[in-house]
Amino acid sequence: MQHYFVSDVLSVGKVVSLPDNVSHHLSRVLRAQVGDSFELVDQNQQVFQAAISQINGRVVTATITSALDRNVELPVETTIVSGLSKANKPELIVQKATELGVNRVIFLPMNRSIVKWDQKAAKKLTRLNEVALSAAEQSHRNQVPKVDYLSGLAALNQLSFDTKIVAYEESAKIGEEANLVKAVRATKPGQSIVAVFGPEGGIDEGEVNLLVNNGYRLAGLGPRIMRTETAPLYFLSAVSVLTELLS
Amino acid sequence: MQHYFVSDVLSVGKVVSLPDNVSHHLSRVLRAQVGDSFELVDQNQQVFQAAISQINGRVVTATITSALDRNVELPVETTIVSGLSKANKPELIVQKATELGVNRVIFLPMNRSIVKWDQKAAKKLTRLNEVALSAAEQSHRNQVPKVDYLSGLAALNQLSFDTKIVAYEESAKIGEEANLVKAVRATKPGQSIVAVFGPEGGIDEGEVNLLVNNGYRLAGLGPRIMRTETAPLYFLSAVSVLTELLS
Repeated sequence: MQHYFVSDVLSVGKVVSLPDNVSHHLSRVLRAQVGDSFELVDQNQQVFQAAISQINGRVVTATITSALDRNVELPVETTIVSGLSKANKPELIVQKATELGVNRVIFLPMNRSIVKWDQKAAKKLTRLNEVALSAAEQSHRNQVPKVDYLSGLAALNQLSFDTKIVAYEESAKIGEEANLVKAVRATKPGQSIVAVFGPEGGIDEGEVNLLVNNGYRLAGLGPRIMRTETAPLYFLSAVSVLTELLS
Repeated sequence: MQHYFVSDVLSVGKVVSLPDNVSHHLSRVLRAQVGDSFELVDQNQQVFQAAISQINGRVVTATITSALDRNVELPVETTIVSGLSKANKPELIVQKATELGVNRVIFLPMNRSIVKWDQKAAKKLTRLNEVALSAAEQSHRNQVPKVDYLSGLAALNQLSFDTKIVAYEESAKIGEEANLVKAVRATKPGQSIVAVFGPEGGIDEGEVNLLVNNGYRLAGLGPRIMRTETAPLYFLSAVSVLTELLS
């Protein structure tokens, strides 16, 4: 069933005019008819079933038919921070991370980032937030993850999180392999966790030290070397396994 | 450090002529020089350090300098089976699954597959096995995963595995959420596990029944709906978390 997000507060029986993008998708892309059902998530992350009551040119009106008791969000508020990477990697990260339950994705330049966003950042963010919306619709999330851009690690260090880790390839060599599990388990439901991932060339030692001095702990993600876009997906899957499957 | 696979059995002190693709990559792509070091994995999955001893036109000769005690393979032999999916999804699955430790990837047509491989299968497999090789080099694996094509689920049911699961979206509704963890934990080191994933439209009920009648158990992969190419990555991460991080 189709799944859309609206900024209203909904309740059963309410009649709503759907936003342009939702109206367009239902009436033009899907050629939906009066009476067809779909899901709407309101600003309180509550999922409702709705049915089309009227199609008037470009404006689709729907009636809320029932409230659905469904929450597919990770129990912990999960942020990934990704050093700027090339080509379509940021899109892949946002799409897959959304499917895997991320709450916020932050991109920032790191020392080994080859690309720069600078003036392009606003346009990139618009596109990446569209990717997040579309993936959140497809994976039937209760919320749309937010995609942000920060100027660097100094700006990141202004943000507070309950648990902070940095994914570091060398962790296995220095006995920090078990830290991922420890970190996730130390994060109580409703608390926040953040994990930082380097760009293609990896995070450099100075950056690791800066983060460690700001309360980040090194964590390994198993013994294999993963690409910059794969490591966050492993992390998010691990958060799910540890908090949803093993809880 | 560069990492390549050879079909020889290596030992310290041995001098080897490198295969064409490795010679080409070292001498032409990287413009490596005599004395430069890299890693070679032999047919027994043993990793060695090697140094270039001679570059003679297209032929690069190397001397094995030391044996490295390194094994990054998952403790359980892990196969994923994926219903044929569109566009570049099979490539993405093979690349990311290799980074995440898969041993074998099997593609097969399912009822809801929109694409067909038929006559194209041989060419597709050649390409996908190249993707696996390249990803195995990059993630410093001890082995290159094998990519295969089967005619359908009947052919799959001829293969034996110690643990067999089918990823099924509806599992959460029927109380099969914990089966993924149970299945992985029931698989002893050295034993094999296989997980089947549907194509874009999902696996249909008849296919699920066919698999269940052949010893497959339904397993959920958390509460969110994942795309056909994302679900196997979640599964492989889960195998790693459960067998490598929590072991």
